[in-house]
Parts: sequence; C-alpha cells; structure tokens
Amino acid sequence: MSLIVTGSIGIDTVITPVGRAENVLGGSCVYFSAAASFFTPVRLVAAVGEDFPDEHMGVFEHFDIDTAGLERRAGAKTFRWTGEYQQNMNDRETLAVELNVLGEQLPPVPEAFKDSKFIFLANTHPSAQLALLEQFPNAELVVADTMDLWINTAAEELAALLKKIDGLVLNDSEALLLTGETNMVIASQKIVEMGPKFVVIKKGEHGCLLNHTDGVAVLHAYPSGNVVDPTGAGDSFAGGMMGYLASDQVSDHLDLGAIKRALAYGTIVASYNIESFTLDRLREITREDIDRRLAEYADIIRFD
Amino acid sequence: MSLIVTGSIGIDTVITPVGRAENVLGGSCVYFSAAASFFTPVRLVAAVGEDFPDEHMGVFEHFDIDTAGLERRAGAKTFRWTGEYQQNMNDRETLAVELNVLGEQLPPVPEAFKDSKFIFLANTHPSAQLALLEQFPNAELVVADTMDLWINTAAEELAALLKKIDGLVLNDSEALLLTGETNMVIASQKIVEMGPKFVVIKKGEHGCLLNHTDGVAVLHAYPSGNVVDPTGAGDSFAGGMMGYLASDQVSDHLDLGAIKRALAYGTIVASYNIESFTLDRLREITREDIDRRLAEYADIIRFD
Repeated sequence: MSLIVTGSIGIDTVITPVGRAENVLGGSCVYFSAAASFFTPVRLVAAVGEDFPDEHMGVFEHFDIDTAGLERRAGAKTFRWTGEYQQNMNDRETLAVELNVLGEQLPPVPEAFKDSKFIFLANTHPSAQLALLEQFPNAELVVADTMDLWINTAAEELAALLKKIDGLVLNDSEALLLTGETNMVIASQKIVEMGPKFVVIKKGEHGCLLNHTDGVAVLHAYPSGNVVDPTGAGDSFAGGMMGYLASDQVSDHLDLGAIKRALAYGTIVASYNIESFTLDRLREITREDIDRRLAEYADIIRFD
Repeated sequence: MSLIVTGSIGIDTVITPVGRAENVLGGSCVYFSAAASFFTPVRLVAAVGEDFPDEHMGVFEHFDIDTAGLERRAGAKTFRWTGEYQQNMNDRETLAVELNVLGEQLPPVPEAFKDSKFIFLANTHPSAQLALLEQFPNAELVVADTMDLWINTAAEELAALLKKIDGLVLNDSEALLLTGETNMVIASQKIVEMGPKFVVIKKGEHGCLLNHTDGVAVLHAYPSGNVVDPTGAGDSFAGGMMGYLASDQVSDHLDLGAIKRALAYGTIVASYNIESFTLDRLREITREDIDRRLAEYADIIRFD
C-alpha cells in the first residue's frame, strides 16, 4: 500500500577505513525509499537543486520510486555532506555540510499523494512533522524519526508530535536525551508513556530494542564482517521496516509480531546497504536475496 | 558431570547508582560456580584468608558447591575489591583493591578433582592456566577466560594456551586488543584461527557473539529494566554456559546448537544476577525460574 516519505536527498562524499566515494547519491529519504521499495510502492517528497546530476535520477527509476513529489528547485543547490568514519565504523565526523535546499521549504505534497496510508515523518522540526501529518487524512500508520537537536530545542512541539504518531524511531543516545534514562528498557517504556504505541531504539551494530504496548523485543544486528560504509544504515533499516509494514503481506500493521518481522526485514536491508558506498549494493539485490538472508539470520539469532 | 573452576573469591564493596553494599561476598569463581550449580555439580579450587567470614561459607552450602579445593590460608588475607559503577551501569571504576591471597600460589587441586571432565580456566596468567590444565588428563571440554593484561604482557603463552583449549571467553575490548580488529565478526574469526573451536565475545548489555567452526551466532542480552549491580555478570554468564554444557542434558558439548543454548542459559542466569548485590538474587531463584525466563527470552528475540 501507499507509503510516503519525506527527508533529505544529498550529494555525499564519504571516507571510511576501506575507501572513499566522491559526490555520490545519499540523503535519508534516498536510503529509506530504496529500502522500502523492496516491499511496497514508495512516494517521495523532497527537493534538490539545479545542480542535481541527471545520472542520479536513474536510481529512483531503478527502485521504481514515485518522484511526483520531487522538486528540482530553480536557483537552489542540492544538500551536500562530507563525512569520515573512524576505524570502528561507528563514530563519524562531519567534515563539511552545505544545507542549501534542505534549509528551505519542503515542496508541496502532490494531491495524488494525499491519500497515503503509511507515513514516515523523517527527521526535521517536529512542527514541520505535525504540519505535514495534517495533509494525510487517511493515515493508518504514522512513524516519525527525530534527533538531539529537536529534543533540545523543540521539546514542547516534540511532545505534541508524540501524542499523534503510532511509532517513534530514534537511536540510543537520543533516547537517553529524551528521557534521562541510561537503561534502554526503562527509556523505551517512558517514551511509550509519552504517546506512541511503539518505539524502536536503534543501537547500530548491536541491533535494536522495541517497546510496544503489547511487549518488548530485542533484535541483535546481522553479524556482518563486510562493512564498507555505514552511511544510511539507520535510514535503510527504517525503510525496510516501514516498507514491510506497508506491504500487502501484513494485515495488522500495529501487531507486535508484525512489527518484529518488520524490524528483522529492516535489519537485513541495512546489512546489505553497509556492504557498499551509496546504493551500489542495494541496486544489486532482489527481494529473494533479502528473504534468503532473513532465513539465515533467523537461524543465527535463535537458540532453541 | 564434573565441572571444575578456579579463580578469585573476594570481599567486595560495591557502589552503584541505586545503592551500596559493604563487605559482601564476590569474586569471579563465586559468581561462576553459583551460576553453574543450577545445572551440574561444581568443584571449586580457590584460596581465602584467615579473615574470611564464616557466614560467607553458607553460600557454598546453599549452591551445593564442592569446596574440597577451597583453602583458608593461615597468615593470609582475603582478596578485597571496592568499585563504583557510573550512571550507565556499564563503566566502572576500581576505588581500592587488595590482592592479598590472590597474589600467592593457587592451592593444590585435590586428587579427587583430577578426574574432572569440564574445565573452566578462569582469568589468570596463561602459564598458570596451562599448568593447571595439565592436571586434568580426562578433560573433555576446556574453556578459558583472559584479559587485557595477559594479551599485553604474555602474548606467547596466551598463543600456546589457545592451541590447547576448546573455547575462549573474552569481552569485546579484549578481542580488539588480541586481534587488532574493530569488527567483532572478523575479530572472532581470527581468534578461531588461533586454535580454539569456538570463541564467545561478551558485549555486556548488548549480548554476545559466538564464532564456532560450524557457524556464527549472536544473542542479544535479556532486556532488563531492573539492574541493581552488574558485578559478576560476565562470570555468571560463563558459569551458566559451562554449567549447562557440563550437564547431562547435553550429549555433544561441542555442537553449535548446544553451545547456543548454553549461551542463552548464561544470558538468563546473568540477567538474574544483576538484579541484586552479591548473590542475593541467585540465592532466591530455582532452575524452574531460569527455564521460565528462558522461554520468555526465546519469544523476545525471535521474529518468525
């Protein structure tokens, strides 16, 4: 079913201990929508600048993403990010960032997108997330991402957002910041008490923790010895999760079991994503590859 | 079957964000043997000093641990440790340590213990571990623990030890130190290539990674919102693991599936251990409690 995502499209330069990629396609909603597209049709609302290379449009075609909401803005430049990962592939440093079009208004949501039922509110100011949400009167599942900046500077707006969404995705340091709790089980419980029916705390290479009104779950990450570039791991995880939940394989998308399977799919798509720079690896794989690794992963994490 | 363990017995003073315990029973082989005793008879070889309080002997009786190898050494004092945990319950600082009897010779292995088949070589100089191992001609499963000190100062002896043991247990920072690899999948693979049939890398609240000649496994830790004192978590994890492998429930104790179940049991015993200071919580529970939480845990980590 119709899954819509907003967020950043960027031109990235990435340095990792195993190599370097210059001026490659990146951005949260690119990784998210590519990952989700393995499961369901994806609609994208985002802006790029006049400088956005035509060759990058081929990626959206490859993943069959509906780009009716993609605006190539006259007089604007595309968001650019340069980052370098440390030896542990976990810590990274932003070497340069140019917000460019990302600092301006989001393009309008096309009329044809307003019937979307599955909404992923990518990380931006919670007031903008709330305003965007109002444009989808048929929303059945709304999941939001957030970050330290909004927790620190827009706490009231974030609190209002949390009362209107079904799920929140954030990382462990953000969960600590939001709740003051270092224990992620307690932190996640406090977040569920703030409004959403479930929260997913991402822990990078260690996996994720789900707190849902019906129970708690933990999934270790897929143990990968082949990490080339972690950029987009969190976005492709969220994309795989939302894509599966929006797919016609799922009848009750708020069911604890369905969300656990969704997290497993997110884990697997992210495990492929980190095997290359930009979307190179995701472009090579099929849904069958995902299902094959999912079965292997199920064996790896079970003991009974 | 007969499981033997050596290591430290200590009198601990522990400060955590939720409380403080003074002069309580601690030490690696106390936590290990209590945890293992839920599954199999345990034999202990260790020394305490004249100052060791009689009341602490009740703990060994409670867990039915064979203390024929426990020496109360005349003229010596018991090992003492004082430590404080930070808010995150992960990082800890040693405030005071008195090696005392722990800096002297280990007591002799009683003749009656020399037919032991399951051997856990607790963390000490690898030469001492090798010498100890020679006293068990019927050994069927030998697992060793180690630490940064020996990796840094006794690399050659440690390399010799790794060729003689079946399994190694260590934490992630030690695995990095031993192999130079930050990726734990690659690090664990390199350790298996050094000799042991399997290695278990402990990652605290994030769980553990197993690399075995037949495959890789990852187990997230049991998600606990009730952490009172993490002291002994790693030792009770190893004790639960070895206790299960030495139990008559296991026919092939080098089988990948058996070791995965053993890691799950270790995870569950450790999850109880951290719910109190010293062994208070382990003294309250039974094997039935462990099996009940194990079943709950199996549900928490599975998605299919």
